[in-house]
Amino acid sequence: MKALVCEAEWSPRKGYRLTREEDAKKSAINGNQVWKNPRLSIKEIPQPEISRPTDVIIKVKACGVCGSDVHMMETDDAGYIKLAYRTKFPCVLGHEFSGRVVEVGSGVKKVKTGDMVSVEEIHWCGQCLACCEGYQNQCLYIEDLGFTEDGAFAEYLISDEKYVWKLNDIMETYQDEEKTYESGALIEPTGVAYEGLFSRGGGLRPGGHAVVIGSGPIGLAAIALLRTAGAAKIINFEISDIRRKLAGRMGSDFVYDPVELKKDNVTMAQVILDVTKGTGAHILVEAAGAGQITYPEIENAMEHGAKVIALGVTAGSSPVDIIKYQIAGSRIIGSIGHCGADFPRVINLMASRRIDMTQIITSRFPLEKALEAIKQTAKKIDAKVLVKP
Amino acid sequence: MKALVCEAEWSPRKGYRLTREEDAKKSAINGNQVWKNPRLSIKEIPQPEISRPTDVIIKVKACGVCGSDVHMMETDDAGYIKLAYRTKFPCVLGHEFSGRVVEVGSGVKKVKTGDMVSVEEIHWCGQCLACCEGYQNQCLYIEDLGFTEDGAFAEYLISDEKYVWKLNDIMETYQDEEKTYESGALIEPTGVAYEGLFSRGGGLRPGGHAVVIGSGPIGLAAIALLRTAGAAKIINFEISDIRRKLAGRMGSDFVYDPVELKKDNVTMAQVILDVTKGTGAHILVEAAGAGQITYPEIENAMEHGAKVIALGVTAGSSPVDIIKYQIAGSRIIGSIGHCGADFPRVINLMASRRIDMTQIITSRFPLEKALEAIKQTAKKIDAKVLVKP
Amino acid sequence: MKALVCEAEWSPRKGYRLTREEDAKKSAINGNQVWKNPRLSIKEIPQPEISRPTDVIIKVKACGVCGSDVHMMETDDAGYIKLAYRTKFPCVLGHEFSGRVVEVGSGVKKVKTGDMVSVEEIHWCGQCLACCEGYQNQCLYIEDLGFTEDGAFAEYLISDEKYVWKLNDIMETYQDEEKTYESGALIEPTGVAYEGLFSRGGGLRPGGHAVVIGSGPIGLAAIALLRTAGAAKIINFEISDIRRKLAGRMGSDFVYDPVELKKDNVTMAQVILDVTKGTGAHILVEAAGAGQITYPEIENAMEHGAKVIALGVTAGSSPVDIIKYQIAGSRIIGSIGHCGADFPRVINLMASRRIDMTQIITSRFPLEKALEAIKQTAKKIDAKVLVKP
Amino acid sequence: MKALVCEAEWSPRKGYRLTREEDAKKSAINGNQVWKNPRLSIKEIPQPEISRPTDVIIKVKACGVCGSDVHMMETDDAGYIKLAYRTKFPCVLGHEFSGRVVEVGSGVKKVKTGDMVSVEEIHWCGQCLACCEGYQNQCLYIEDLGFTEDGAFAEYLISDEKYVWKLNDIMETYQDEEKTYESGALIEPTGVAYEGLFSRGGGLRPGGHAVVIGSGPIGLAAIALLRTAGAAKIINFEISDIRRKLAGRMGSDFVYDPVELKKDNVTMAQVILDVTKGTGAHILVEAAGAGQITYPEIENAMEHGAKVIALGVTAGSSPVDIIKYQIAGSRIIGSIGHCGADFPRVINLMASRRIDMTQIITSRFPLEKALEAIKQTAKKIDAKVLVKP
Repeated sequence: MKALVCEAEWSPRKGYRLTREEDAKKSAINGNQVWKNPRLSIKEIPQPEISRPTDVIIKVKACGVCGSDVHMMETDDAGYIKLAYRTKFPCVLGHEFSGRVVEVGSGVKKVKTGDMVSVEEIHWCGQCLACCEGYQNQCLYIEDLGFTEDGAFAEYLISDEKYVWKLNDIMETYQDEEKTYESGALIEPTGVAYEGLFSRGGGLRPGGHAVVIGSGPIGLAAIALLRTAGAAKIINFEISDIRRKLAGRMGSDFVYDPVELKKDNVTMAQVILDVTKGTGAHILVEAAGAGQITYPEIENAMEHGAKVIALGVTAGSSPVDIIKYQIAGSRIIGSIGHCGADFPRVINLMASRRIDMTQIITSRFPLEKALEAIKQTAKKIDAKVLVKP
Repeated sequence: MKALVCEAEWSPRKGYRLTREEDAKKSAINGNQVWKNPRLSIKEIPQPEISRPTDVIIKVKACGVCGSDVHMMETDDAGYIKLAYRTKFPCVLGHEFSGRVVEVGSGVKKVKTGDMVSVEEIHWCGQCLACCEGYQNQCLYIEDLGFTEDGAFAEYLISDEKYVWKLNDIMETYQDEEKTYESGALIEPTGVAYEGLFSRGGGLRPGGHAVVIGSGPIGLAAIALLRTAGAAKIINFEISDIRRKLAGRMGSDFVYDPVELKKDNVTMAQVILDVTKGTGAHILVEAAGAGQITYPEIENAMEHGAKVIALGVTAGSSPVDIIKYQIAGSRIIGSIGHCGADFPRVINLMASRRIDMTQIITSRFPLEKALEAIKQTAKKIDAKVLVKP
Repeated sequence: MKALVCEAEWSPRKGYRLTREEDAKKSAINGNQVWKNPRLSIKEIPQPEISRPTDVIIKVKACGVCGSDVHMMETDDAGYIKLAYRTKFPCVLGHEFSGRVVEVGSGVKKVKTGDMVSVEEIHWCGQCLACCEGYQNQCLYIEDLGFTEDGAFAEYLISDEKYVWKLNDIMETYQDEEKTYESGALIEPTGVAYEGLFSRGGGLRPGGHAVVIGSGPIGLAAIALLRTAGAAKIINFEISDIRRKLAGRMGSDFVYDPVELKKDNVTMAQVILDVTKGTGAHILVEAAGAGQITYPEIENAMEHGAKVIALGVTAGSSPVDIIKYQIAGSRIIGSIGHCGADFPRVINLMASRRIDMTQIITSRFPLEKALEAIKQTAKKIDAKVLVKP
Repeated sequence: MKALVCEAEWSPRKGYRLTREEDAKKSAINGNQVWKNPRLSIKEIPQPEISRPTDVIIKVKACGVCGSDVHMMETDDAGYIKLAYRTKFPCVLGHEFSGRVVEVGSGVKKVKTGDMVSVEEIHWCGQCLACCEGYQNQCLYIEDLGFTEDGAFAEYLISDEKYVWKLNDIMETYQDEEKTYESGALIEPTGVAYEGLFSRGGGLRPGGHAVVIGSGPIGLAAIALLRTAGAAKIINFEISDIRRKLAGRMGSDFVYDPVELKKDNVTMAQVILDVTKGTGAHILVEAAGAGQITYPEIENAMEHGAKVIALGVTAGSSPVDIIKYQIAGSRIIGSIGHCGADFPRVINLMASRRIDMTQIITSRFPLEKALEAIKQTAKKIDAKVLVKP
């Protein structure tokens, strides 16, 4: 079958100390320190086959491009991939996807052939202390689909049933296969926002005001979820024109371009205080990954008891004036990825028409052009780019 | 000024033991045990005057009729009022209202003359252990507007500023005084649902399915709030035609008449399991006050970890099969009234157009006809009846 | 190897409708409706062998007798076992135990040969919605060690590694194998109390007063845990002399015999209000399984915001006056079994000497006398009886 | 009567913009920007008198010295007081105290003459949105006893009843007036730790490991509370010998001197990982006010889902590597002061002998030597210094 494979050279940087595990498995915790000269190409590889009773084989129907796919393609000056995350090459990329079950192992209970499904990106063991306590995202033995295990820019994919969730209810609502598969491919990024806002963050008090900084796919999902969960005013900051437009469509009441604000010598904090009439926001989502700029604004715009949800990934430390969190009785809550019941709860929201994430899809490519899809994403013009085999 | 006054005879039933407090203040904890032969009439009484620095005088603009107003008018066979709640007569009735501030005491900070406002029904001391711990509803020294203190079926009303909340943001959104005052008169019953679902109940996981049994004003508010807070499927049971229609309009996806179900030999639990494809509901609201019938249904329709929110008031004990709550890992959460930030959060939801409770108003009467308004409510045809001085 | 095996006849009562699953697997959801004429005896059966890469074989060192073991031995008038729970016979009984790992499958990561361990009783799938959402106790595909799968009144036992937790830290603290294994055999009932109080119940506010009704092993564990978690006054009610004595030793400040109270015409609610100077208790644990008697007392002794933790199993419905939960802003929280991180957190408490559950062991028997151990337990004189192969 | 009065000159620094409120009331939000040349002295001032129905007059029995008292005495190079907090001079200092009620206003319900009491330091309005939502600490109209209103280094003090809580239960337990008053003077700092750990922080899962950095009175209280709330291993870091000794006495299992660690080239994070066998801590309390040093350690020693409780006040921003909180699924929770039910819950813990904070008292002075008491505290040799009129 055809698949977009990423290959690279295992060449740990001088000074980087591999863990015993990394060395034994040739699987990097931080790819940026180890993998050099990546080559992405459509290849012909063997179709996956059932080998364990819990295996499920899925024909891929749609797979979104993530910023991390771009960072496995792009390199720094020394030739290392930009992605500072778990990686093991060669690997088929793609981890935001949907498809149809075409074969199941003898012991599979959750799905059957013909089911429309999506699959979690994070592969958790389910038995370590973190997993047992509901922190599968913090699993001690984590693996990642499309990073350390073959992903979904391919015709077929194999997964353990435990990561697989049915989309049948979305199909029942819309009676539209395209809509269902495209919705399905957007569950993963929506799940990332759901995890931060609800599973880790504990949700908001309906009637509280909300801020989302950054409107990439995860920021846009956060806006849609805040809107469907009862935020009063929703305020968004985003530099891209097209994303600001989508932010409004997903439910943001107030949308600002930080570049324009700067020209007017107005800070984000001032805007938030102005819109909320001085109270500040009840929940503030950092989805920009620009912590050095955003946290110093956030800390000046918090209502008493505010929740700051950290979703964006910032390289390096951010300055945080802790006393401001003390005076406000507020908190910073870290979240990454998704787990638990994030997927099925997001599916329910889609199936009951509470959110429609397909609105953020801006381009579609066939599998043969998966590499072009990644390059298109790298231009940062789009919101979400899909590959549809 | 004109006001609807309720008078009655202090005549404790044989066998009822008055507390020392009840006797001293001639204020009953359970009116049904003490007050006989009620007479409701429009009277001319003195207009309230500022006597303390924190007093606020409000010109009433709209006041809803509550089922408890009916129960102060109606009597049982022995001539006692039906209402088993705190009461001290004579008293001006009416506790779901809005109005305009016309005068404030010298120390008032929260509002100023001209502000559009609504006022909490429950008067809490703010300093006992319950109040300090956020259970103002469980205040040791509770008083009730329209029950033990003069209420709002009147031209004017006096309140301590601490119970008063501004509606100005609703006015800013709608630019419509009528809409603002009518919304304002519906904050109280909406606050009762908000308290149960969010302040006491801790809210729902967006994407969970919801059930509301009973669609009086509080059940209808629960539907509107569940819809705005991210419930997936919302299922309602209600016997009145007009209320079922309103349930749909407020956001219920599935609406059933229990009488019809019974004819078909189908239980509410079966319907819930059917609609939720066997999982049961994530959150179930008892808003019917018919616990002997409803709890035995609820306990057969709970998803793991379900929350059962008890809002309706049932006379006497209900049979509860506790093992079903153990097997489901679920809970019953008692809630009554409103407190804390329920009012301002509901106001935010109205001002940001997330909910519009004015849709449930089915009749309007002038102050002179307040008694007719109560009699109309007693017919149980309406959803919400307003008195507008 | 030797093992205490329970055999019985599959003979569904007239009128009991087997589910398809029950019929196919000959495994009853409610044993009392299906299994007749139980015979418990020490038998020679084959020693378990590793067949899957995640198998662990454990040499049993200590196994507690549970009330449910008694209920599989005892029958009602029609000859059916008294236990109304999942069962599949023949089955080796025993589910509260500890032992030493003697062999592990090729893929086992959590333990290694020689580790001292305990094993969860509830076997959860880890992938259904309930499991993923942290309700492994509500798993759709639940199995039970010592009920539907061979248990620990035996020389050896086999388990999937995911249910196994190490006791090594207890050994490190006490440097005493006997103490470690006996502690290990008490993790399961302590985990049941931990689940209810903390995992489902969300814990208490330190400085709140606590009530425990019933001092069987789970009630005693609840007392120990409430003491170690910051309850102020702890009040216990229990009819057995020896258990009342142990309640005091585990940390209860006030211990009453309900039989004596009745003679004095004093209710449990009155005692609680008296001890708490009228405020009522912050957390109340039903560990007696006598709901028809206990809930009507509990509802009269609740502080605002009280948590009622339902641990005891009561047959049939209990009368619950819901309005009292509304007026108190309180709740009933159902809990059964244990899951998630209950075992490792209890182990930490034992290893750091915060609780010492071995104090409740009142008798010890060798494996050959396991049946006598169950009969001894049936006399209800003891707190906890151990079988030590 | 005699009292320790602080006087200073109102001299706003150049560039500091007074708010309208500050200017009108001559009350500074940040004293360090406004007040110059402080003079502390024992003066004869008029005894307070009842003027409002809710006033309570208290004869002071014991009052602790706080670090903030030192910072009102000490000045920077420009002559400004070091304290960057609300202040209005002249003011009687002292805010951690206990005493006996000697007179009450006509409307007082909470206490009566003769009651032994302690009083909250933070004076909250009880009616703004923050107060109503349980964030009295974030009150919009906050005042502070001993900072903006006359405090307790005096013979008598006047307070509104709402801030007053009875110590009678402690007296009932110990039957010792000295013990009761000394315990009472320690409620305030203990309440600060209680607020952070439980009221804001939501408490810990019993059996989780805990870290406290810094063992001033608040750090010591945190240790005592963690111990009484079920922490497994408690690890403390503190540079002062006497405080490390007290940390052990309050319940810390492992106590380290960071200076010694540094000599050995070992970080705090390494120690925590070592003691917890690699898992990191479940709850970590910053009570040192040295965020630039402590947060970079904390973020490397967190278990999945860890709670970092920020109690210490650090001047300026601290570097926080947010991605570490995302990867751990952990959070930083800001807390300052106390409110709600912190005082009565701490009193319950003292009255039931769960904590005994009097152990941290290291010196006692008569009122006449209150200034010496502050100077003694400034030497940072003691844990807690008491002034006893």
